[in-house]
Parts: sequence; structure tokens; C-alpha cells
Amino acid sequence: QSMRGSVGILTLGLLAWIGCFGPQPVQAGKVLVLPVDGSHWLSMKILVKELIQRGHDVLVLVPETSLLIKSSENYRTEIYQVPYSKEDLGGSFQALKDGLFLKPPSMADLFVNVERLMNFTTMQVTGCESLLRNQPLMTRLREQGFEVVLTDPFLPCGPIVSHLFNIPAVYFLHGLPCELDSKANQCPAPPSYIPTSFSGNSDVMTFPQRVKNMLMYLVQSYLCKVMYREFDRLVTRHMSDIQSYRELISRGAFWLLKYDFTFQHPKPVMPNTAFIGGINCAKKAPLPADLEEFVNGSEDHGFIVFSLGSMVENMPVEKAKQFFDAFAQIPQRVLWRYNGAVPENAPKNVKVMKWLPQNDLLAHPKAKVFMTHGGIHGIYEGICNGVPMLMFPLFGDQIDNVPRMIHRGVAETLSIYDVTSQKLVAALKKMVQDKSYKENMVTLSQLNQDRPVAPLDLAVFWTEFVMRHQGAQHLRVAAHDLNWFQYHSLDIIGFLAVVLLTVLWVLLKCCSSCTRRCLRLWKMKKE
Amino acid sequence: QSMRGSVGILTLGLLAWIGCFGPQPVQAGKVLVLPVDGSHWLSMKILVKELIQRGHDVLVLVPETSLLIKSSENYRTEIYQVPYSKEDLGGSFQALKDGLFLKPPSMADLFVNVERLMNFTTMQVTGCESLLRNQPLMTRLREQGFEVVLTDPFLPCGPIVSHLFNIPAVYFLHGLPCELDSKANQCPAPPSYIPTSFSGNSDVMTFPQRVKNMLMYLVQSYLCKVMYREFDRLVTRHMSDIQSYRELISRGAFWLLKYDFTFQHPKPVMPNTAFIGGINCAKKAPLPADLEEFVNGSEDHGFIVFSLGSMVENMPVEKAKQFFDAFAQIPQRVLWRYNGAVPENAPKNVKVMKWLPQNDLLAHPKAKVFMTHGGIHGIYEGICNGVPMLMFPLFGDQIDNVPRMIHRGVAETLSIYDVTSQKLVAALKKMVQDKSYKENMVTLSQLNQDRPVAPLDLAVFWTEFVMRHQGAQHLRVAAHDLNWFQYHSLDIIGFLAVVLLTVLWVLLKCCSSCTRRCLRLWKMKKE
Repeated sequence: QSMRGSVGILTLGLLAWIGCFGPQPVQAGKVLVLPVDGSHWLSMKILVKELIQRGHDVLVLVPETSLLIKSSENYRTEIYQVPYSKEDLGGSFQALKDGLFLKPPSMADLFVNVERLMNFTTMQVTGCESLLRNQPLMTRLREQGFEVVLTDPFLPCGPIVSHLFNIPAVYFLHGLPCELDSKANQCPAPPSYIPTSFSGNSDVMTFPQRVKNMLMYLVQSYLCKVMYREFDRLVTRHMSDIQSYRELISRGAFWLLKYDFTFQHPKPVMPNTAFIGGINCAKKAPLPADLEEFVNGSEDHGFIVFSLGSMVENMPVEKAKQFFDAFAQIPQRVLWRYNGAVPENAPKNVKVMKWLPQNDLLAHPKAKVFMTHGGIHGIYEGICNGVPMLMFPLFGDQIDNVPRMIHRGVAETLSIYDVTSQKLVAALKKMVQDKSYKENMVTLSQLNQDRPVAPLDLAVFWTEFVMRHQGAQHLRVAAHDLNWFQYHSLDIIGFLAVVLLTVLWVLLKCCSSCTRRCLRLWKMKKE
Repeated sequence: QSMRGSVGILTLGLLAWIGCFGPQPVQAGKVLVLPVDGSHWLSMKILVKELIQRGHDVLVLVPETSLLIKSSENYRTEIYQVPYSKEDLGGSFQALKDGLFLKPPSMADLFVNVERLMNFTTMQVTGCESLLRNQPLMTRLREQGFEVVLTDPFLPCGPIVSHLFNIPAVYFLHGLPCELDSKANQCPAPPSYIPTSFSGNSDVMTFPQRVKNMLMYLVQSYLCKVMYREFDRLVTRHMSDIQSYRELISRGAFWLLKYDFTFQHPKPVMPNTAFIGGINCAKKAPLPADLEEFVNGSEDHGFIVFSLGSMVENMPVEKAKQFFDAFAQIPQRVLWRYNGAVPENAPKNVKVMKWLPQNDLLAHPKAKVFMTHGGIHGIYEGICNGVPMLMFPLFGDQIDNVPRMIHRGVAETLSIYDVTSQKLVAALKKMVQDKSYKENMVTLSQLNQDRPVAPLDLAVFWTEFVMRHQGAQHLRVAAHDLNWFQYHSLDIIGFLAVVLLTVLWVLLKCCSSCTRRCLRLWKMKKE
């Protein structure tokens, strides 16, 4: 049976080879990459490596101060100076992380999130500013004749460089705050069934939920202006033909979106987008011998993988104690990515590691539960490998990612703020004993894996497509040339209303004057 | 260079084979096909044959009276009786065809088209009725355990059978009159940049064009109700849980759309759709010896292919004379699909044939111009092979197809009603001499061919996907459960307006009562 499928796919490849359809040959191209730091880079790196593998000449532009972006032998890097130190960057991030474990979650989260985000992005704007003012470097880059800019519009530098150099941009992202990606790409998103960020809604809403959704939609339309103010200013400082950041990124040639509809609620999409959710979990390696031995030692109980993501490796001692206490009460073994102090009496079934091969562990048949913060990459590693998730959302898109998974019956969530060992044990026991979590997750995983083209190949295809055709102009909707008034046909509706009213008024006047004349005639006749 | 691309695709196939992504194995499945007659069937047959090739058990349900659907050794057919004869069917069609060459085109075309369409579909409704009332056949079909219904919702029988048997439906179509496909699938289509049928607009419109677009949009919203009245009645007669034809087809699992954005203006799309424009031109055969000799004899002048489609093989003698006269004046050779009388002094450079291998001819390097009625299949054969088109739109979607191609600078059009030999010669000369038609067409062709999966493979993939997962529920938007009032959030907007007004009113009342009390106190103090 499996052989049938495989033969089908080989045939598909061969057909594309001999037939007239399929990707056309591309010569080694020149790709300029402007990545965003942190987990954003970890998934983009997969595409960058694949592009190099396929013979392209890739240059990655890296700020001298970065958290996860490093030089590599595989690709060329160009480093530019920024006016902040690694400590500044780490400090701004540390304040954010410390807060997570201490403060109760509330509606105010929305504003706190916006403020944190703005602190982080304002720093990045100054970094971008110093790249743009670095004339020697800019000239050197411009002269290299890149054919495509690969970037994440979460930060403005990539889109700006793409526009200044007049090179088409391919965007690689999960999404943008306040859905600027949908808005900039003219993608309709009716608030009647598309849940607003941080609303906790699914795509099926009661009346009160829809009221909340609409209110948050309105608030975010305003916040959007505040949030992107620094970006708007940066854009207008450097370009005279662009009025806002939204307008700038609307020029992007193609959008590679790191999700699909096994995770996201189905919604309208635009022709110049492709869905590559799961691009980060295609490649698996066998576990190192010590890990393999540890997880196999769990026997039929299986094991649990616990990580709060690439940026959060620590937590307060008191908080960590709750987790150690809980793990001591369960039969499963636990692999925990944790860089904090380990108590002397730490339970024997827990293996604490500074880093763990998350996707390889989740691919192991004994993996039972994945304890995660609910970042998009972790979620897809859970989905790809069919492992139910216990989720601790921390910030940003994680707040919205979690309800998506709970809605599908493949996850549970606990608040990191008030988590206790009792709650943890209860949740883990429930998730192991109730088979529905695993069953739903296996179904979801099968849907996710079943697609005509693997996400990495799709990402490469569209990047090369943009290189081959200098963009993807035929996929760009004409709505970009309309303002919102025209887009919603308000001018036409107004015009038609005026015409209709005028006609009615003229008719009315005619009628009344006729009536009057008739009456007069009738009176005259009578006299 | 070509080798590089080929290796890339082979790698793609191999990667999908060894990696976790890609189509999962499908066992030989059972497919029930309810086709629509005419050219609709000619393209669906390609998918049907491929499904058989891949080992599926396919049953095609055919009315005893049909124009182009024939039994075959390749697939099983089941024939059902209908209460009209082949003459009835042909007669209704002949009246339509005769009118084409005689009547001047005008705005009234819209209504004439609707009337003709309704005559045709009303006959088909009676045919469907007799299938649904044929209890022995229906029981036999139900018992066979089909996994998917492949059909074209242009006629109602396929969607009805799919719903009655509770089998997911895959739709295979170009589009439906008055855009019922978009409407039923909840696909947003703002009239500000999506041209309305028969409007002649492109996606970039002036103010008067947008006024026209909006007016025709409103008229068609009404016509839609009239046009589908017979279908609505048929649906409600046979199903108690469905209120309208639109609601019925909204249940479809997946939509295979026979266009892409090299032909159609880019617009929002839904997750449960795939674009397979050009599915009909992938397979090419070498020309028979006599044809090869004839076209090669054209030397550097090249040749012209002329066909008005599978349904129109004839024209009035006077009209044909204009074409013969024109062809006598040009150096190109002409292959003409024509079943009428050939005058004795017919020019030697014209070869009249009852049928011609259109796609194979267009694939020949000497093909210069394709004279076509502008049906979707002919258009894609023109695009795939990069041959500019001189178009004579006759009816239905052809009226809208033609401006799409002219907009891209790859075609010209002439009205079949008032065409003369002078006009023909001038148009053909212009298209051969002005190289821009050919250049634009080659660019368009390259865009069309450059896709990750060939259209036929994509159609097979999604049909098998629906079989593997009993539908594609995760791609179905929640908007289907909202009425139009809720969809546009009108209830929420109304509610919020009432709340806002109430709050304002209460505030106003409070203020005024406060003011009054203050005034009274002040007066008392004064006294």
C-alpha cells in the first residue's frame, strides 16, 4: 500500500520532467536574505540552506548584535553595525521574560504585549536606520545584482532594502501583529467568522463572542496605527513614493506563510500566498545513543517533552519546583529544556538539558505529551509527529495559537502564572489516559502531511519562481490601486443613491405639477 | 540549464518519497461520475481516464440522450432514461447556434443568454428528475459504496446524488452563471475590482465602468434567483434539509477550477479550491503525416488554426464566404474545422476538416494565429502553446473570456455577426506582423507552465484526498453557518449602535438633570 503511494509520487516527478508543466530551469541565482532574529530565523534558515543546496548564491545580512543568527560556512554573511549592544538587546528581552511568570494574565495583556513589542521594534528600527545610512555597504550590496530579497516583514529593513534596490521580495512569516499581513495583501477577513487576535475566539462564535470580536477588531485597527508608527516614520524618511509601512509591504511579490489549515481556521486566501506550515519538521535524525536509552527506559509509559521555546530557557526557582514536584508523581519520563538550577532531590525520571533535539524526540513512538509554550514551530512539530500538547502560552501569537489547538481536541492549556504541581499532574494524567487527544492528533497529522508538494519544496519553488519571472505580478490583485472608500464601492453606492434620489425627486415634482395642472383644468371646466 | 531543472524536479519527487510529506497511499477507490454534456465532458474525461489509469473503479452515469458522452471500454457506464429525444436536445441547441450568426450583439445579450440557458437547463432538470425517480437504479448505485462523486455543478444532478447518498463531492468546472460558485463557496468578490459577467470590464476600472459593474452586479443578483429557480425547485422536491441550489452546492468538498491567474484576473480564493487551468493541453501527439505535410508546406508564413468549438461546426453560406475570401488573400495556410458546404473555387491554402487535432496543431512551431470562439479549453490550448488568438465570442462565458485575453495583449476580437473579409484580413495581418502579440503570449505561456504540480496531477491529488479523508472538512470556512446579515456583522453593528446611543442618551439625561439641579441650588442660595 505504501509502495503504491510512493510510486505515484515518483510518477508525478517524472511526469513533470517529461511533460510541459512543472518548474522551469533556473540558473544559479543571487539571493539577499534579511532575517529576523530569534525563532523567526530558525525556520527561515531551513529555506536558506535548501536554496544553497540547490546552487544559489545566498548572502545573509546580519546585525553585529544578534541572539541566534550566526555566521556559517554554508552561506556568505555581511555584518552591519547597530547602535545597541548585545546587553541592550538581551536586557529588553529579559524584562519581558521575567514578567511572564509573575504577572496574572488579563485583558490588559493586549496592551502590555503591544508595549513590549514596540520597545523591541523601536530598537530594531535604530539598527535598520544605521544599515540604511551605511552608504559604502549599501552601495556594495546594490552592485551585487541580487534577483530576490528573502525577508520577514515582522521588521522593516528587508522590505525597505527590497524597495530601494528595486528587487522583488519574498516574505517568509507566520503573521504580523494586528493582521497587517492580511490587510497589506488585500486579503478579506470578515470579523464575523475570523477570530481577532487575543480574543480567544474560534471561527464559530456566539453573539456575545462576535460582539467581543468586533470590539477588539476596532480597537486593533486603532492600535495598528500606534504599533507601526515607528515603521511608518522610517519608511517615509527613506522613501518619497511610499506613505506607510502597510503600503510598503503590499509591494511584496510573494508571501510564504508558516501555517496551513490543519492549524489555522480556514479563511479566504490570496493568489500570491503559499502555505508552508510544518516546513520545520520535515527533516528528522535518529536520537543520540544516551537519549535513545533514556526514552526507551520509559517502557510503556512513554515520555514527555517539555520546552518553552528557543528564547525562554529559564524560570523562577519556585515555579520550577512545581514542575519538578509534578514530574515526581507521574510514571512517564520527562525531557526538559531548562537552564536553571536543578534541586538536589530532583526526580530520577527527569532529564534536564540545555538544548534538546525537539523534533527528533517528538518523532519517537514513545512520545506521549509535548509540553510547549505554543510557538508556531513547536506546534507544527507536535502536529507533524502526532503528539498531543499541554500548552503554556507566554506572549505574542502564542495567545492565539493555543485556542486553535484546543478547538481541535488535541491540546489542553495551563496558565504559567498560577500553575501548580496538582494541576500539572491532573492535566498530564488526563491527556495520557483519554485516548481522544492522541486520536484527534493522529487524524490532524495525517491531514497535515497529505499535500501535493512538501512545504520546503513549495517554498523553494516560489522563491525561484519570483527569480525566474522578476516577481509574480500576475498574482497581484488590482485592489491595491483602490483606496478603502473605492474598495468598498462607497463612492459608487453614494453616486447611485444621489441619482436615484434625484430621479425620484424629479418624478415627484412632475407628478405634483401635473396633478396641480389637472386640478386647475378640472376647476376651469367646472366653472 | 534544462538538466538542472529536471534534476530539481526529480529530487522533489524523491524527497516526497522518502520524507514524511506528500500524498499518502490510496487504495483503489470507487468513483461515481455525473458529467455535463458538451465541452464540459471533454475536459472532465481527461481526469476520468487518469483516475482509471491510477487503478480506481470509475462509473460514469450517462443520460441515454447525449451529444458527446459515449460509452467506453475504459470505464463502466450506467445509462438512465430521460423524457426527451436526441432531436429535442439537438433542436434546442440548434436554435441557439443559428441565432449567433444573425443577430447583432447588444446589452440584451445578457437576457437572451439567460433565456437560452434556462431552456437548456429546464430540459436537463426533467432528465435529472427521471434519474432520481428511477428507484431500482438509485438503489443499485447507492449499494455500490462510492467514496466520491465527481461532477460539474453546472447541472444539479451530481450535487443532488452526492447529497442523497451522503458521499463527498468534488466539483470540476470553469464557473457557474452569475458566479454562483463564488457565492456558494463564500468566496469574497468585491465588485470594485472583480468584473461582473458580461460587463466587458477588466479588473482596473474607471468610475463609469465601476458604476456599470455595480449595476450589473445588482441585476445579476436578481437574475440569479430567476435562473436557478428550476434547480431550487428540484432540490426542495427531493431534499427536506436543503432550501436552495446554492445551499446544496455549498456542501461540496472540493472545487477543481479550470482556470488560473494567467487567464483570470487575480482575486481572493478559498482553501478548498485548486486551479487546474490547462488540464486539457498537457498531452500532445505528433501530427498525422498528411497534416504535417500540409502545415510544413506553409514555409515561413506559417499556418492558422480555425475552430468555433466542439458544438459549432457550421455557419451560414454567406458568412462562410467572408472567411474563404479572406483566407484567399493571406499567405498563411489555414486549417478550418468546418462541416458546411465548401465552394468550388475555395482557395488552395485552406484545408477544411470535420474535426482537427487542435492542441497538436497549436503545439506546432509554425502555428501563427488561433482563430477561436474563446471557450475556456481553446483559450488554454492557445496559452499553453503560446499562440496568439483572434477571437469570435459566441455565448456564455466566452463573452467574458475574450476581454481577459485582449487585456493581456495576446488577442484581438471580431464580432461574428458583422465580420467581413476585409476586417478578417486586416486583423490577421496585424497579428502576424506585430510581434508583441507573440511575445506577450510566450511570456504568458511561460507563467502558465511554471507551477509546482501539473494540473492533471493536482486534480487527481485532490480527488484522492477527498477519498482518503472522506471530504476536506478542515478547508471549509465557518461562514457557511452564517446568514448574510450575520456574515456582514450587521446584527453586531446594529447592537453596538443601540448600546452607544443608549449610553449617550443616559449621559445626556444625567447632564441635563444635574444642570437643572445645580441651577435650582444656585437659585435657592441666591434667595
